[in-house]
Amino acid sequence: MSTTIDPKTVAKQPSNGSSGAGGHDSQRNMILEGQKYRVLGTRPIRHDGADKVTGRALYGADIRLAGMVYGAVVRSPHAHARILSIDTSEAEKAPGVLAVLTAADFPADDPTRLVNMGEGPIPLAYARGNILADDKVLYKGHAVAAVAALTSADAAEAAKKIRVEYEPLPSVATTQEAMAEGAPILHDDMFTLDDGKRSEKPSNVTEHFRWEMGDVDAGFAQADVIVEREFDTATVHQGYIEPQNATALWNNDGRLQIWTSTQGSFNVRQATATLLGIPVSHIKVTPMEIGGGFGGKIPVYLEPVTALLSKKTGRPVQAVMSREDVFEATGPTPGSHLRVKMGATKDGRIVAGEAWMAYEAGAYPPSFVKPGAMCVFSCYDVANLRVDGYDVVVNKPATAAYRAPGSPNAAFASESVVNELAEKLGMDPLDFRLKNAAKEGVRRVDGPKYPRVGLVEVLEAMKAHPHYSAPIEGENIGRGVAVGFWFNVGLESSVSISVNGDGTVNLVEGSTDIGGTRTSISMQAAEVLGIAAEDVHPTIADTDSVGFTAVTGGSRVTYATGMAAHDAAQDIVRQMKERAALLWGVEADTVSFSDGQFSSGSESMAFRELASQLSDTGGPVVGRATVNPKGVGGSFAGNIVDLRVDPETGKTDVLRFTVFQDAGKAIHPSYVEGQMQGGSAQGIGWGLNEEYFMDAAGVMRNSSLLDYRMPTCLDLPMIDTCIIEVPNPGHPFGVRGVGEASIAPPTPALADAIYHAAGVRLRRLPMNPVRIMEARWAQSSS
Amino acid sequence: MSTTIDPKTVAKQPSNGSSGAGGHDSQRNMILEGQKYRVLGTRPIRHDGADKVTGRALYGADIRLAGMVYGAVVRSPHAHARILSIDTSEAEKAPGVLAVLTAADFPADDPTRLVNMGEGPIPLAYARGNILADDKVLYKGHAVAAVAALTSADAAEAAKKIRVEYEPLPSVATTQEAMAEGAPILHDDMFTLDDGKRSEKPSNVTEHFRWEMGDVDAGFAQADVIVEREFDTATVHQGYIEPQNATALWNNDGRLQIWTSTQGSFNVRQATATLLGIPVSHIKVTPMEIGGGFGGKIPVYLEPVTALLSKKTGRPVQAVMSREDVFEATGPTPGSHLRVKMGATKDGRIVAGEAWMAYEAGAYPPSFVKPGAMCVFSCYDVANLRVDGYDVVVNKPATAAYRAPGSPNAAFASESVVNELAEKLGMDPLDFRLKNAAKEGVRRVDGPKYPRVGLVEVLEAMKAHPHYSAPIEGENIGRGVAVGFWFNVGLESSVSISVNGDGTVNLVEGSTDIGGTRTSISMQAAEVLGIAAEDVHPTIADTDSVGFTAVTGGSRVTYATGMAAHDAAQDIVRQMKERAALLWGVEADTVSFSDGQFSSGSESMAFRELASQLSDTGGPVVGRATVNPKGVGGSFAGNIVDLRVDPETGKTDVLRFTVFQDAGKAIHPSYVEGQMQGGSAQGIGWGLNEEYFMDAAGVMRNSSLLDYRMPTCLDLPMIDTCIIEVPNPGHPFGVRGVGEASIAPPTPALADAIYHAAGVRLRRLPMNPVRIMEARWAQSSS
Repeated sequence: MSTTIDPKTVAKQPSNGSSGAGGHDSQRNMILEGQKYRVLGTRPIRHDGADKVTGRALYGADIRLAGMVYGAVVRSPHAHARILSIDTSEAEKAPGVLAVLTAADFPADDPTRLVNMGEGPIPLAYARGNILADDKVLYKGHAVAAVAALTSADAAEAAKKIRVEYEPLPSVATTQEAMAEGAPILHDDMFTLDDGKRSEKPSNVTEHFRWEMGDVDAGFAQADVIVEREFDTATVHQGYIEPQNATALWNNDGRLQIWTSTQGSFNVRQATATLLGIPVSHIKVTPMEIGGGFGGKIPVYLEPVTALLSKKTGRPVQAVMSREDVFEATGPTPGSHLRVKMGATKDGRIVAGEAWMAYEAGAYPPSFVKPGAMCVFSCYDVANLRVDGYDVVVNKPATAAYRAPGSPNAAFASESVVNELAEKLGMDPLDFRLKNAAKEGVRRVDGPKYPRVGLVEVLEAMKAHPHYSAPIEGENIGRGVAVGFWFNVGLESSVSISVNGDGTVNLVEGSTDIGGTRTSISMQAAEVLGIAAEDVHPTIADTDSVGFTAVTGGSRVTYATGMAAHDAAQDIVRQMKERAALLWGVEADTVSFSDGQFSSGSESMAFRELASQLSDTGGPVVGRATVNPKGVGGSFAGNIVDLRVDPETGKTDVLRFTVFQDAGKAIHPSYVEGQMQGGSAQGIGWGLNEEYFMDAAGVMRNSSLLDYRMPTCLDLPMIDTCIIEVPNPGHPFGVRGVGEASIAPPTPALADAIYHAAGVRLRRLPMNPVRIMEARWAQSSS
Repeated sequence: MSTTIDPKTVAKQPSNGSSGAGGHDSQRNMILEGQKYRVLGTRPIRHDGADKVTGRALYGADIRLAGMVYGAVVRSPHAHARILSIDTSEAEKAPGVLAVLTAADFPADDPTRLVNMGEGPIPLAYARGNILADDKVLYKGHAVAAVAALTSADAAEAAKKIRVEYEPLPSVATTQEAMAEGAPILHDDMFTLDDGKRSEKPSNVTEHFRWEMGDVDAGFAQADVIVEREFDTATVHQGYIEPQNATALWNNDGRLQIWTSTQGSFNVRQATATLLGIPVSHIKVTPMEIGGGFGGKIPVYLEPVTALLSKKTGRPVQAVMSREDVFEATGPTPGSHLRVKMGATKDGRIVAGEAWMAYEAGAYPPSFVKPGAMCVFSCYDVANLRVDGYDVVVNKPATAAYRAPGSPNAAFASESVVNELAEKLGMDPLDFRLKNAAKEGVRRVDGPKYPRVGLVEVLEAMKAHPHYSAPIEGENIGRGVAVGFWFNVGLESSVSISVNGDGTVNLVEGSTDIGGTRTSISMQAAEVLGIAAEDVHPTIADTDSVGFTAVTGGSRVTYATGMAAHDAAQDIVRQMKERAALLWGVEADTVSFSDGQFSSGSESMAFRELASQLSDTGGPVVGRATVNPKGVGGSFAGNIVDLRVDPETGKTDVLRFTVFQDAGKAIHPSYVEGQMQGGSAQGIGWGLNEEYFMDAAGVMRNSSLLDYRMPTCLDLPMIDTCIIEVPNPGHPFGVRGVGEASIAPPTPALADAIYHAAGVRLRRLPMNPVRIMEARWAQSSS
């Protein structure tokens, strides 16, 4: 089920539309004011479709090189321990072993040198420490040593023969434990930076920041109703299907080649160069196909390890994580503890907000508390706001980005408070939100003023949607709502396009394609060139073969790489006009181009025809563009969810789920819908079931896909989508980027639905049957 | 031994220089007027050096794909036969067989449609016929059918089970046989085109052309001395080490991928698309490393076969030729029959020339008689010329380009006549040539007027070289001289360059690197950018990932792709100036760039420093350029050769060999010298020993590297080189292109040396001991 709404015509939408296949018989609102575009908004088959469905696509672990050997990593059994000694002698003698690696094999460098691995500056020692532990292990699964051997079985056996002597230390698993007086300290050299001042004693809090605007105390003094609540969110994992992997060849000329499935080949290049102390240009990274990332495939793990093993062995070395490794040693999203307080006047105006947010960084900083703080009040126009953020290390794997990182934690807290405020005010929760909705010109607590954004249109679409007015039929069923935000990013992208003699073009880009971006980028080039999307042949090149391109993340690819494709296509058009002018003997500036046709005076020629005459008019035509755009347009998402709670067991069933999102121009609506559905599914898992279940020793007890139960298709209803197209003025086609916002609203919307179904407001994730029953029992006993 | 001469200072060269290692203690003339360039003219290590010497470089047959199966080709045992039937039923049942292919599997298309496979228009039926024979086989080794099976052994066994019923026909092996009255006709539908008129009867001569200038009869009437001789050259093979190969995957989305070692990936794309009737953009060709080509790896052979087998099997299919296949079924260079007549006045002025040239095309037209005709008199300024060219099909494999294709045959004839003329006039052969040398403004018989060329400088360098004045010590030793020409070509090239943050650049090109062109191209970009050659990282991309680029051939790569690199680097400089201007708050046109330094007023910044600040000034910087240059500068080469003939056996020993060539600017002198030495070695083989030894049935009897004896290092002296740098005004650095001219002069120079050593003028190649002894016996008996 899908719906696309053009906000200019939202008032005109029919109250009942036709119904499509699957999901609910809800209204179809495919309302667009004519077809402004020829290619954009259509749904061509993705360029990599055949390769993906026939199994030809090559993922990270599929690369095979002559003479390749295999790496295995030795990991800590302790959540926190001092390494007293590492004895590799037995492993070195084991069958098939070619090399053994420890942190001592990193080349000499200043460990205090600040390096940026993509999320802000940290000491090199921390960056290297997460690759191979030095004097301490900081989480169960922490890499301590590695082996390269002729077979992966040999490598695994030899890894067992590395004797590591540990002195176990007490560990901390949550921000509360880590911030408690007398807590075990992870890093003796870590001090709290608080407003630029360093703490006297080492601390697990690496940073505290406070953002304020207006007069918060005066704001709360105006409030007629104030709600203040505390919230906890669990550590959850992105749950991509494909485990981390890397294959490296340290060549005899000193150049390093890496094949890996990553969200950013240039990020791998930069990170590996930094860790190994070599220039970026000595590294070539070939991005393989990627089986999911969601932010978790931005950091490097095995890349530097296989690189150093290759340097030692002179052979290509491949290493692939097990699922246990993925859970225990790659970055999950932070667990967090939040306190949110909001106050409103009787007439429904929010006058003040305050948030106290502590996010787990895992073993090494930073956490994602800053983006969380950017999002916690971002949906509302509130004059008086204060946010305190705490970045806290704990004995868990270093966190990584996960779809709108930091925002879902924040939305769970603030949207739950907003729903409770609306209830206390006796207002419809959507009307309450509309009254306070952020819009163009509103300033966020972290500084920026909104350009044209689409939250009002999202809320209006939610109100107008038949799901919202549908009667609830049955018992123990509740309906919840919430909204959420992600600011999206811009960053660098490079695109080259060359014209084929048959009137098609080849497009070279550097953005890993996770969700269909080969096609969403190609479509933007096709729109400019007046050709079909299928006539653009996209290639994702290695780092030697395309200009610098930042990660696939931050919902940036269709926005920024799409903009580069648009600009490169315009570079093509400009050059082709010159060729047409040459053929016709006219000035280039007299040649116009529209609908795939060049013309000047009475002369006219189709793109395809001119493409066949390039050789004679000066040679091939190649266009290129690079961008680092600043006109990022944030995206808002909203959910309406119907959910039944089994009163005997607390088991929940999501009965109906509709997601609304402000996509800007939806280039390929199917992939926009896919992102909205994917974000929703992950948000539902996060809300209802997923968590790192830690035992007292700080060991995750559910590190398998059987025990870490992500929702399957049997657990979810068909997720209905409603795309709202509020064009982003900062993009030539109005693209915003849609990959992330839709993961923010599910947890508070589900909490709201549970409240309406079961009468209890849950403030700790996941809201699993145990928590629901405990809350009900607590309520009935109080 | 190497020598580089700047013609502006040739008069200043010392008469005795220091001596280097290897070869003769000849004078070293490294005379350059200061260092105009920082990078050009130096000898950096080639970028692919480590991969090549450590065996990491992946050649065509090294590609391995999941599910790959193997192809084998069934070939004709007859030089000429009608195919009565092909029975594939047994083969289809053979173990492991997945598909059997015959010409009937080509998709329906108009067989008379004219297609251009790279050497001029021919009917589609001929182009396809050389891939898989249809109704007739036209040479021993002609492909008739193919098999795909799980293993190459299975494929080979199954191929034997294909029963082909032939009706053998009489065959023709030379132009004389093919042009004889009543000769067997290869193609019933082939008629001679003579000055646009079609012959009445089918013929083995596909074209006769005549080029004339001046008044030839009047010219000869002025002559005091006339020499007219007939010459024969044998069919010889390029002799590249790596056999032809192809791996193809016809994907489920209809796109075809091909991996092959080829001189031109875009040529493979175009040829395969033409043969299979699909758009070029449906094909992606990945050029693997190439183990030699010399022109022979321009045509396609196995590519369409593996493509069709892949389409039938749904699997990637690989096929690799045996050495026998390479000799018998890929394009050798044409054997030829020539008659050259030249006349000169007593004072040494050549007043008229006439050439009759018949070149073998092999089984399908065209031959290389036209380029031969362009070169036959190209070294001389002669007012009255006439050339008749005949393109003749014979029952041998269709010819392919081989280093200055057509020119060595022509030079053997015309240079032998020139040497004989000089002798008759009692003139020094170099003085005679200098008196008549082609120079700027002289018109060639095929039309064009020379721009600045370097023949005079080559001849002056030969005269001045100590080799020419060295006394001949010993008996039965002769010294010969000759010169030769190749016109070189331009054609399309595309280059993209992206700037790395560490101040290096990545360069993407489409030119297969056979002789070190990664480096000669990178050096030109480095020169513009003021960085080191090692700081340019070149990549040869597949056809989806780089703009159209014509074949590596015609001595064009360092010229044309180098020009594109120069232009793309200038595009970088232009953009970087804008970035510097942005940083400094000045207008871009006030920023200058030289010696790797941007500056404006008092501001200054190194390329490397600015490269690290691109993200903040608008994003990455990517430059691109495409060319199809017209300012091609031909190249002249000359040889001085000392040779001993054993009077008892006719065995020859090349004692000393010096090659001179007008390189224009020698970008990387080592690779220029390598080309000159390689061309010389091949010319020596062609002159003294190599030939397709055909039996009466039209079967080559020496189709192995043991029997087809190319010269080894034991057969050759150290070949001394002398580079003459006469800049080409049609290139920004003066590059001419050096890959071919040096193969033209060896055969006449060797003939001249044999004459002076043994007293006989040989006019049939190869000039092996049998021919020398026969000539001596004939002379002594006359």
